[in-house]
Amino acid sequence: MKYDLIIIGSGPAGYVAAIRAGQTGLKTLVIDKQYIGGMCLNWGCIPTKSLLESARFYRRIIDQAADFGISGLEPDKLSFDWLKAQKRSQQIVAKLSRGIEYLWKKNAVEFLKAEASIVSPTKVKAGNAIYEAKNIIIATGSRPAKQELFPKSIEIDELLSAEYLPEKPVLYGRGAIIAELAQFFSMLGKKPLIVQSDAPLIPGIDPYLEAFMLKRLKKDKIAILQAADVQVQPDTIKYADNFYPYDAVINCSLRKAVLPGMEIKLATQDGYLQTDDQYRTSEPDIFAAGDVNGRSYLAHVASYQAISIINSINGINNDITSHYPINIYTEPEMAQIGLTEPQLRDRGQEYLSREFGFNANGKALAEGNSEGFIRLLYEPKYQQVLGVQIAGANATDLISEASILMQLEGTVYDLAAAVHAHPTIAEVFMDAARD
Amino acid sequence: MKYDLIIIGSGPAGYVAAIRAGQTGLKTLVIDKQYIGGMCLNWGCIPTKSLLESARFYRRIIDQAADFGISGLEPDKLSFDWLKAQKRSQQIVAKLSRGIEYLWKKNAVEFLKAEASIVSPTKVKAGNAIYEAKNIIIATGSRPAKQELFPKSIEIDELLSAEYLPEKPVLYGRGAIIAELAQFFSMLGKKPLIVQSDAPLIPGIDPYLEAFMLKRLKKDKIAILQAADVQVQPDTIKYADNFYPYDAVINCSLRKAVLPGMEIKLATQDGYLQTDDQYRTSEPDIFAAGDVNGRSYLAHVASYQAISIINSINGINNDITSHYPINIYTEPEMAQIGLTEPQLRDRGQEYLSREFGFNANGKALAEGNSEGFIRLLYEPKYQQVLGVQIAGANATDLISEASILMQLEGTVYDLAAAVHAHPTIAEVFMDAARD
Repeated sequence: MKYDLIIIGSGPAGYVAAIRAGQTGLKTLVIDKQYIGGMCLNWGCIPTKSLLESARFYRRIIDQAADFGISGLEPDKLSFDWLKAQKRSQQIVAKLSRGIEYLWKKNAVEFLKAEASIVSPTKVKAGNAIYEAKNIIIATGSRPAKQELFPKSIEIDELLSAEYLPEKPVLYGRGAIIAELAQFFSMLGKKPLIVQSDAPLIPGIDPYLEAFMLKRLKKDKIAILQAADVQVQPDTIKYADNFYPYDAVINCSLRKAVLPGMEIKLATQDGYLQTDDQYRTSEPDIFAAGDVNGRSYLAHVASYQAISIINSINGINNDITSHYPINIYTEPEMAQIGLTEPQLRDRGQEYLSREFGFNANGKALAEGNSEGFIRLLYEPKYQQVLGVQIAGANATDLISEASILMQLEGTVYDLAAAVHAHPTIAEVFMDAARD
Repeated sequence: MKYDLIIIGSGPAGYVAAIRAGQTGLKTLVIDKQYIGGMCLNWGCIPTKSLLESARFYRRIIDQAADFGISGLEPDKLSFDWLKAQKRSQQIVAKLSRGIEYLWKKNAVEFLKAEASIVSPTKVKAGNAIYEAKNIIIATGSRPAKQELFPKSIEIDELLSAEYLPEKPVLYGRGAIIAELAQFFSMLGKKPLIVQSDAPLIPGIDPYLEAFMLKRLKKDKIAILQAADVQVQPDTIKYADNFYPYDAVINCSLRKAVLPGMEIKLATQDGYLQTDDQYRTSEPDIFAAGDVNGRSYLAHVASYQAISIINSINGINNDITSHYPINIYTEPEMAQIGLTEPQLRDRGQEYLSREFGFNANGKALAEGNSEGFIRLLYEPKYQQVLGVQIAGANATDLISEASILMQLEGTVYDLAAAVHAHPTIAEVFMDAARD
């Protein structure tokens, strides 16, 4: 069988590449050994957000319903039905998965569930068959690195499909997911414990956001222990002179690339496939998109790379965007785009910052979510916005205004001049800009 | 007493003008006969949104909690404690009101609670005193017109401060508030009835959004009767051969300007103060901002006009913005910015439209809010965006991305190129742009 394009892996790089390839008339085959949608759809973005939403709703009923005028609730009688929340999450995953299949079919993309290996720059083996293509995209993603501190630990996909939730889980590692999961357990009334493998806890975000979240985790009574200082015993962690019992360990280590089997040699760095500015590997007809190229672990960056690659294959120039939002689904949510303070300092870029809180915002107060802020980093001369950081309810959607602002190289003045509706949380953008 | 500026009325035009005036060093006096913050803060935007949020939360618990995995709830035992919801809303109003007072004090703005009348182009009478100023801003707002169809009716401020809620309220009139209030009662399990004074039900929005909301109201089983065809009887409306019982009538008529007492003559049109493009009345040192000048009933437009006026007084040029978002806090929310289809046709502007639904969006599904769409109207040549319409959860915040896009004269390509984080509802913007 001969294709224009074979894509190995069907996560947010692979499935988006396949749809775009099909739309532009490329004869395309997707091979994935497991699930359509990859980690993101099956064990990452989507199920974690569905389950977090369940936990948030549960906590909101307990903490806020009475104040909002909802009577007849007995918070003591409420409980969290993990299997039901799980089922809802799985239904959403199934629906989105069918949506991808539908779009593939509509665009004549073929799919093969099999383990794939690359046997030559134009040939892929899957099962016992050999498939040939002019181009190959490796989009095999990443998975959390193995950890050695705890003899027994489970991976996030095991947690999400477990029959019951642990009561005192240790979350070992680093990254946004560790804070999200810790708060998930905490909102459900369980006692999570973070064992941080290295600093900072959430790499890649501005220290200002990190500090905000550390303060919040402290307020949530979620202890954070430094891995270097813990003594692991069965069921207990000794830390200084304290003992912390635990009943499960969830591995939230930073992620490592997953490579397909290969009979050819592609250049790698630290285990990731090396790519040029068109995401070509050392074999020019083989591309690598998403986590496997080591540039980012963000789903939307993977999808963006995927579309750039299809453009390259079709001989279309790519607009280069350097602005990627980073979203963190903590309580409250956090989001960031553009440069952080350390990045600005490293570049010797002069900058100013200003921020405005949610606690004077009418809509935030009306919704009972007045914790948080919007913060702008900008250069002093023309006041062009260089970075935006948000903590607060809906931060992950609010950041999209900053995305488009930065895409169009907008200034603080533009933000101040754009009429923001009242009452909205987005008014805080205008308040920060006008302040 | 001699001031640089006297402002009559302290709503979103008056209080914003006062803060900006104080910040720029103008000696400023605000006079309001009643509440700091005007209708918007005390009986409009803020309390209605707080109360809607209570109703939405109540309904969400009944409709969704079990599905999200929250057990132990007995929906039959739940009830809505109106006085408690009201109290929460009043606390928010009080907090925001204190915030305005604080900002006034900080910027040396004086406040007088009194009925004001204008005795000359530079003199205002309040109580028995005469206050003099170089400039006057009239920001006295509007109120719903009286209605004559129903012998007894209450105003929205009376409803919001009532001791109990009616079970079968008639909502008479037109406008966004009528749909918002109807759904408020419906979410609480009551039987509201809309008597529409004229068509369309919600003036100013695109017929596409209106049609969406009419369909939704039908699904909510909220009947809409045409005022011309009803026969009003005590406690019952006869309409065709049906009888609709009611226990209260809430006046939601379109609004009319409220003018201060005046011993001078200012030009008016249809009861509104006539203003030029700097919001000057026929007396050049007297400005009119907000509802009273008849240009818009939107709080954020009032505030925008207020800032423009202070700029004019200070001799600063104003950026002219013609893009005002319109937000409607229905279930789901709706929002719009830029031109509507009828406006585009009237201008002979060629346009295309595209839309994308929320029902394939992962975050919307995760949150259990997958009803709605984002719709783009744009010109065919450069694909500059001319109008954006949204229906769906958080529409009123999502529209801010469209505000900044239109402020910067962005195109569909810009929207497609801006990386939107995954998973977010704002991805629907990108999907619509890429479709």
